Amino acid sequence: MFIKDIWYGAAWSGDVEPGKPVALTIADQPIVVYRTVDGKAAALEDRCSHRCAPLSKGRVEGDSIRCWYHGLLFNSDGRCVEMPGQDMAPGFDVHAYPTVEQNACIFIWTGDPALADPSLIPISNLTSNGLPFRTGVMEFAADYQLINDNLCDFSHVAYVHEHTLGQGNSEWSHRVPTQTSLENGICVTRWMEGTRIPPTPGVDPSLRVDQYTAYDYVIPGVLMMQIDSYPLGTAKALDYGVPPASMEGAVYVVRSLQLIVPVTEGRSRYLFAVSHPVDPAPDQSLDAVIGLFRYAFSEDRDMIEAQQATIEKFPGMALRNTRHDAGLVRVRRLINSKLRQEAQPAEVRAAE
Amino acid sequence: MFIKDIWYGAAWSGDVEPGKPVALTIADQPIVVYRTVDGKAAALEDRCSHRCAPLSKGRVEGDSIRCWYHGLLFNSDGRCVEMPGQDMAPGFDVHAYPTVEQNACIFIWTGDPALADPSLIPISNLTSNGLPFRTGVMEFAADYQLINDNLCDFSHVAYVHEHTLGQGNSEWSHRVPTQTSLENGICVTRWMEGTRIPPTPGVDPSLRVDQYTAYDYVIPGVLMMQIDSYPLGTAKALDYGVPPASMEGAVYVVRSLQLIVPVTEGRSRYLFAVSHPVDPAPDQSLDAVIGLFRYAFSEDRDMIEAQQATIEKFPGMALRNTRHDAGLVRVRRLINSKLRQEAQPAEVRAAE
Amino acid sequence: MFIKDIWYGAAWSGDVEPGKPVALTIADQPIVVYRTVDGKAAALEDRCSHRCAPLSKGRVEGDSIRCWYHGLLFNSDGRCVEMPGQDMAPGFDVHAYPTVEQNACIFIWTGDPALADPSLIPISNLTSNGLPFRTGVMEFAADYQLINDNLCDFSHVAYVHEHTLGQGNSEWSHRVPTQTSLENGICVTRWMEGTRIPPTPGVDPSLRVDQYTAYDYVIPGVLMMQIDSYPLGTAKALDYGVPPASMEGAVYVVRSLQLIVPVTEGRSRYLFAVSHPVDPAPDQSLDAVIGLFRYAFSEDRDMIEAQQATIEKFPGMALRNTRHDAGLVRVRRLINSKLRQEAQPAEVRAAE
Repeated sequence: MFIKDIWYGAAWSGDVEPGKPVALTIADQPIVVYRTVDGKAAALEDRCSHRCAPLSKGRVEGDSIRCWYHGLLFNSDGRCVEMPGQDMAPGFDVHAYPTVEQNACIFIWTGDPALADPSLIPISNLTSNGLPFRTGVMEFAADYQLINDNLCDFSHVAYVHEHTLGQGNSEWSHRVPTQTSLENGICVTRWMEGTRIPPTPGVDPSLRVDQYTAYDYVIPGVLMMQIDSYPLGTAKALDYGVPPASMEGAVYVVRSLQLIVPVTEGRSRYLFAVSHPVDPAPDQSLDAVIGLFRYAFSEDRDMIEAQQATIEKFPGMALRNTRHDAGLVRVRRLINSKLRQEAQPAEVRAAE
Repeated sequence: MFIKDIWYGAAWSGDVEPGKPVALTIADQPIVVYRTVDGKAAALEDRCSHRCAPLSKGRVEGDSIRCWYHGLLFNSDGRCVEMPGQDMAPGFDVHAYPTVEQNACIFIWTGDPALADPSLIPISNLTSNGLPFRTGVMEFAADYQLINDNLCDFSHVAYVHEHTLGQGNSEWSHRVPTQTSLENGICVTRWMEGTRIPPTPGVDPSLRVDQYTAYDYVIPGVLMMQIDSYPLGTAKALDYGVPPASMEGAVYVVRSLQLIVPVTEGRSRYLFAVSHPVDPAPDQSLDAVIGLFRYAFSEDRDMIEAQQATIEKFPGMALRNTRHDAGLVRVRRLINSKLRQEAQPAEVRAAE
Repeated sequence: MFIKDIWYGAAWSGDVEPGKPVALTIADQPIVVYRTVDGKAAALEDRCSHRCAPLSKGRVEGDSIRCWYHGLLFNSDGRCVEMPGQDMAPGFDVHAYPTVEQNACIFIWTGDPALADPSLIPISNLTSNGLPFRTGVMEFAADYQLINDNLCDFSHVAYVHEHTLGQGNSEWSHRVPTQTSLENGICVTRWMEGTRIPPTPGVDPSLRVDQYTAYDYVIPGVLMMQIDSYPLGTAKALDYGVPPASMEGAVYVVRSLQLIVPVTEGRSRYLFAVSHPVDPAPDQSLDAVIGLFRYAFSEDRDMIEAQQATIEKFPGMALRNTRHDAGLVRVRRLINSKLRQEAQPAEVRAAE
């Protein structure tokens, strides 16, 4: 059971190349994504209406895609526009998914196209300034909500990422960060004084900093994070408030956009990107950060897939909450509320 | 759900060697096939009646096969004829399947042995003239009816086999061939003028021919095909009729027998053979044709397994038909009719 | 469905090292085993009570184990003793399994801890004399009762182990051994005259001996075996009775403890050990025997996994019995009786 009337991050822009259809499953829906002549992303149901061959094994022809089993041709609206060997027959159209491409990401709306309002896409500042960034994708054999849980509670950094992101700092688990509610999620912030920056080219490994970490986490699973490192004493000088938007005096700054996408029950896709909002961002450092993230997320994956397997071994066993779990509880509630809403008959939903 | 009262092509004769029992599953029935002293193919239920060990792990002794777990011995009629350590006890016999070996193929009857009439086996002229031939076997992770569909509609040749069997000729999909009904299947014929022969040793690659393709396709899934290539102009000279049985003037001639065998739900086996009905058939050319077929059928397998997977992702989604699908619709109807008939109580069937 | 109120052989002592938690599933119950500071084996439910991460991915700290997802700490009684970032909250304890370590094996009681009487563990003389021994572990994709069956009926030695343990002696299958009933199992004994010893360093390969094989087999699946080889004529001289406990005059003597442990439906673990009750036991010979056993048990595994697969292919098909099966029939009855007893309501069981 997945939310339908929502935008899902389907793929990083750079991962869908002209002439190469990409097969993706989002929220149990097999989808083919390809680029039309003008480079726009099109997304169709990945199923030929004739004999159920996947269109993703097909060939892009102009704005259309041809099924490579018997040659039926579909345009980017899902209209069947050619049937080899016969005149057109009705009833062969397939579903076309609303798509929006922004911030280097192709978003797909899996529900009712009439409700697909692009303004509902969470705005990331990751790539809006035109600076370089890096992206990655991982597959998890685990439910997407377990990955949401992971990202809504950074207390695990002290254990799962002990030697990478955590750098031996037990404060991650021993102090609960500040959390406020957003309409569709949560906002989490914390100052950590005198902490270390993970190994990065150009950063003195002995350096201690005051680090400000803040992120919004909104449903279905979007993390927009800043990690700003300042000289020692900055946290106290700012009375543990928000650092200036100008980032003046910052030693090291990272921005990250991460999207958790349900694939099927127990399978998920994790899209992640990083940038340095400084000009120019040194490529070497960006490569190091995306490499660090990829490694750290594989640490998460090891644990989360083991957690998924354990949950399956103990059917009916409830997950319990600690003080650290206030954020994930809110995100799970928002998702459940949306699922309940979508499960209601259309007339009830319209009346709300 | 598979037809039971029918002959299935179990294996090519050359693939069952003396002293080497072969495990095969046909239509959900695990079967062991072995050769008796006089070389006759015997087929038993692949299950020792004692503790369910597979007899196919056993040892052939004369006309019998000994279970290699505790030593029970079964003759080719399925009679248990020895129980080590004790006198014979009743009730240990296993099912023996009627078998017929003809045209280089071992056929097995999976239903009521009393109905196993050898004259119901489709007659192939593939090997009846004593000329050399080549055989192959492939496993498909797909329902056998999807492979039947594929072979009843050659419009896919233009796409799936674009660079192999199709040789870029779009006529495969743009023109519907002539089709007539057989009692247990269909007969499909077509002339293609000025087409190319797939790459073959001894055949000039620039050669254009008039090609006559004709095949019978009968249930549960047997294709008997001829591909006769004649000099340009032959089709018109024959007024697009049947070429002479003598094949006089033919440039290049292929005969093929192909058998599609259901293994279990969603699993199938594909037996295929080719010969040249000319004397002598050059081995080099036969090797080339079986190699081409094997490669082309792997193109089919890629598509059909993807189709099977897509069907499973869209449960309840109907397959739709085009003009090309008249043949497969008839074959599916014949299969469904036989399945319905077999599902009826015995007394109703007897009364029919 | 597995017996709960019973001791299962979880692991050989040497396979659970200090500081290295081991994940084991026994009778459908995922368990983590680790050693406390004083070396005692502790066994907890392998599931953190917080978010279902497996404790076996955690870290041993003194007598406790820390979940490596969010840091909850559990002592060897299953008590949650630390929750990072907050005061202790109730309800976070996990189940602790009674454990006993004896005869080089860690035994775990999977049922009601109040009933965990260590005197119910079958006593093996394998290691009680302080002599060297060797151990091994194998995983079987088969139900544990099929392995029990195998070990309660050595008639298979003539076939499955023809060239290893059987040494071509068909008497294994053609003569039924003496069998008596034990309270929780069976006792099987036999003399074989003039038989060969499997290839062993220091044993003349042409040597023929009178061999006395005797074993107890008790539920849920414990084999305690002696194989004593004496000079020719000994069997008759002893009137086929029990050889002296002193083993005086014995040419070659083996003791073996084997434990069959259900993992999940259709999965089992096989723990086996061998020793020579002679002083000193030559290491070279012990290595040869454990190697021979390992190879022979892989012969069993090939057959038993094929048997399991065949049983699954013929649902509802009963296993039949021969004269050789009296022992396994009794063991299966004892297991079924215990399962029926445990399925009864607690008040009925208490009244019995």
